Amino acid sequence: MDKVYNIKPINQMQGAKMQEYVNSLTKPQGSLGAVEEIAIQLAQITGENFPEVIPPGIIVFAADHGVASEGVSAYPQEVTVQMVHNFLDGGAAINVLGKQIKAKVEIVDIGVAADVDRIGLHMKKIRHGTANFLKGDAMTREEAWQAIEVGSDMATSVIENGAKCLIIGEMGIGNTTSSSAILSALSGLDVGEVIGTGTGISVDQLKRKQQVIRQSLQERNPDPTDPIDTLSKVGGLEIAGMVGAILSAAERKIPVLVDGFISTVAALVAKRLYPEVHGYLFIGHQSMEAGHKHAIMLLDKKPILNLGLRLGEGTGAALAFPILEAATNIVKEMATFESAGVAEKI
Amino acid sequence: MDKVYNIKPINQMQGAKMQEYVNSLTKPQGSLGAVEEIAIQLAQITGENFPEVIPPGIIVFAADHGVASEGVSAYPQEVTVQMVHNFLDGGAAINVLGKQIKAKVEIVDIGVAADVDRIGLHMKKIRHGTANFLKGDAMTREEAWQAIEVGSDMATSVIENGAKCLIIGEMGIGNTTSSSAILSALSGLDVGEVIGTGTGISVDQLKRKQQVIRQSLQERNPDPTDPIDTLSKVGGLEIAGMVGAILSAAERKIPVLVDGFISTVAALVAKRLYPEVHGYLFIGHQSMEAGHKHAIMLLDKKPILNLGLRLGEGTGAALAFPILEAATNIVKEMATFESAGVAEKI
Repeated sequence: MDKVYNIKPINQMQGAKMQEYVNSLTKPQGSLGAVEEIAIQLAQITGENFPEVIPPGIIVFAADHGVASEGVSAYPQEVTVQMVHNFLDGGAAINVLGKQIKAKVEIVDIGVAADVDRIGLHMKKIRHGTANFLKGDAMTREEAWQAIEVGSDMATSVIENGAKCLIIGEMGIGNTTSSSAILSALSGLDVGEVIGTGTGISVDQLKRKQQVIRQSLQERNPDPTDPIDTLSKVGGLEIAGMVGAILSAAERKIPVLVDGFISTVAALVAKRLYPEVHGYLFIGHQSMEAGHKHAIMLLDKKPILNLGLRLGEGTGAALAFPILEAATNIVKEMATFESAGVAEKI
Repeated sequence: MDKVYNIKPINQMQGAKMQEYVNSLTKPQGSLGAVEEIAIQLAQITGENFPEVIPPGIIVFAADHGVASEGVSAYPQEVTVQMVHNFLDGGAAINVLGKQIKAKVEIVDIGVAADVDRIGLHMKKIRHGTANFLKGDAMTREEAWQAIEVGSDMATSVIENGAKCLIIGEMGIGNTTSSSAILSALSGLDVGEVIGTGTGISVDQLKRKQQVIRQSLQERNPDPTDPIDTLSKVGGLEIAGMVGAILSAAERKIPVLVDGFISTVAALVAKRLYPEVHGYLFIGHQSMEAGHKHAIMLLDKKPILNLGLRLGEGTGAALAFPILEAATNIVKEMATFESAGVAEKI
C-alpha cells in the first residue's frame, strides 16, 4: 500500500562549487544575501552549474473538512467549491499571481464536498470531504495514502510537462484547523500556540476552534511518531495531496516553493516521512497565521518574504518566485571580477 | 538658482476608493497584506482606478567621494569607474535584475573621478568626485543644486519615455560614509548608530570610518534644518542626483521605488525639502547596513523585502518591483465576490 519514494540527499559538492562561483561575481561577497543562499541551494538541489526555475508549475489542491461544521471558520463550507469555480474562471489571486510568473495553475479536486465536473479541473476526489475529526478519524490510513499518491501523480505530470520549480497551494474551508491539529500533534506544542484566526474569525470563534482541536486530539490521539496516523486522524485531503507533490518533486530533484501555514505543515509531514526532503524546500513567505512561525522553525527554514499575507492558494509562494528567478539570473548573467576587470577588495 | 518643484499631496480619496474595491475582491479582507497596502498607495499616487507600474525605469547615479582617500571603504576608488564600465557592458547585478523586470537601466556619470566617454553613458559630470569632506566641504551649494537638476532631468526624460515607476540606485566607493554623515547630521543620531561595514570593511576600518565622520561633522558643522547645506558639506553627487530624480518623479505622480541605505538617505533629503514626497515613496528592502533601519524609521516607512542585501545599484528595489506589479495585477484581474458568486464572511 504505502508508496516508497527514492529521495536523494541534496548535492553538497555542487553547492560548494556554486558558493565559490557566486563569490567571483562583481559584487561584494555575500552582498546579495538570501539571493546568494537561494542560488547555492538551487545548485544543491539540481546538481547544475546554472540551475533553472523557469517555467514554474503551480498545483492547488482543494478539499473540504468535516470539522468545518463545528463553526471554526469565518466562511461557509460552500466557499471551497465556489473558489474552485473561481480558480477555473481565472478570477482568484493565485490565477493572477500565477499568470504574472507565467506558471500554469493546475486545480485538483482531491476531496471537495460538492461534485464539480468542469473542463480544466483535475477530478481526483478521494471522498466528499473528510469526516468531522471531533467525532471520528478524518479519513482512513488508506485514503491518506491515496491522497498522497494523487499529489505525487499531479506533481509528476506537471514536472514531466516541463516545470522546473513546483509551487504548491491549497483551498479548503476549515484547513487551518486541521493544520493546527497536525502541527500540535507532531510537535507537542500546545494548541494555544499553533492556532490563529485563519481567514478572519472572531475571538469567540477562536476559543471554539481551540476547544475543538484540543478535544479532537484527545479523542483521536494521533501517534506523533507516525505522520500518516496523524494525517489520517486529524488531517485533510489537500494536505495529503501536497505531501505527495512535495515527495514527488524532491524525488525528481525539483525545488519546491512552499506557501503559507497549511502547505508548510504539509512540508513538515513530508519531512517526517523523508528527512532528505528538507533540502528541496523553500518557504515562500512568513504568513500572519500564528502557527506558521512554529512550523517554519520546526523545518529549520527562513521564509523569503514577509508581507503580512494570510490567503493561501499558493499566493505567497508565487509572489516569492521572482526571487528564485533572480538567483538563477545573477549566476547566469553577471560578470566575474576577472571578466569585467574590476578590482577586488583591498 | 534653487529649482522649485510642484509636488502635490497624494490623493487620499482615490486611496479610499481603492481600499473599498480591494475589499470586494475574492479573498478574505486584508489577506494580501502589504500587497493591498501597495495597491492603495499606488492609487493615491497616480489617481487611477487601475494604476500601472510597467514599464519601470532604473537610473543608476555614479560618483566618487574625496573622503574615500581616508581609508573608509573595503574597495579602492577606481572600482567606481570600473563598475561604470561593468554597468555599460551589462555585467553588474543591476543589469541582470533590471533585465528580469524589463526595465531600461540608465547609467549617469554625475561625478566619477575618472573620465569615461562611452556610448550609452549619460555624461553629466558636475565635478571629478567630491572633495574630501574631512578637509573641506564636499561640494558647493551650487554644485549640489546642479546635481539635483541632473537627477531631475534624468528622471523627467525616463518618465517621458514611458516609465511608470522609477527605481533609483547608485554606485560610488565611499558613499556609505557620506550617507551616514548626512543621516547623523539630519537626525541628530550619534554616528555610532548610523554607520556600518558598507561593502565589507574590518573592525579597525569601521573605527576609522566613525572617527572620520565624527570629525567631519564637527569641522563642517552642517545645518540640520538645511538639507542642501548638509548635502553640500558632507554629501555626494550621486546622492544629490537621486534627490532630484525623486523630486521630479513625485512632481509627475510617478511612484519611486527606493533601494537601500544610500538611496533612502537621498529620499530623506528629498522629504526634508518637500514633505509631500513621502506619499510617492516605496522602500524596496531593508538592507544590512546598520543606518538603514534608522533612515527608514525617520521616513516612517516599511520596507517591502528583507533579504540581507547590502549591494546598492538599485538591486533591492529591482527585486521588490514584482510585488508592486502584483499589486496592480490583483486589482486589474481578480474577480469580486459578486462577479464570481462567492459567499462572503458568515
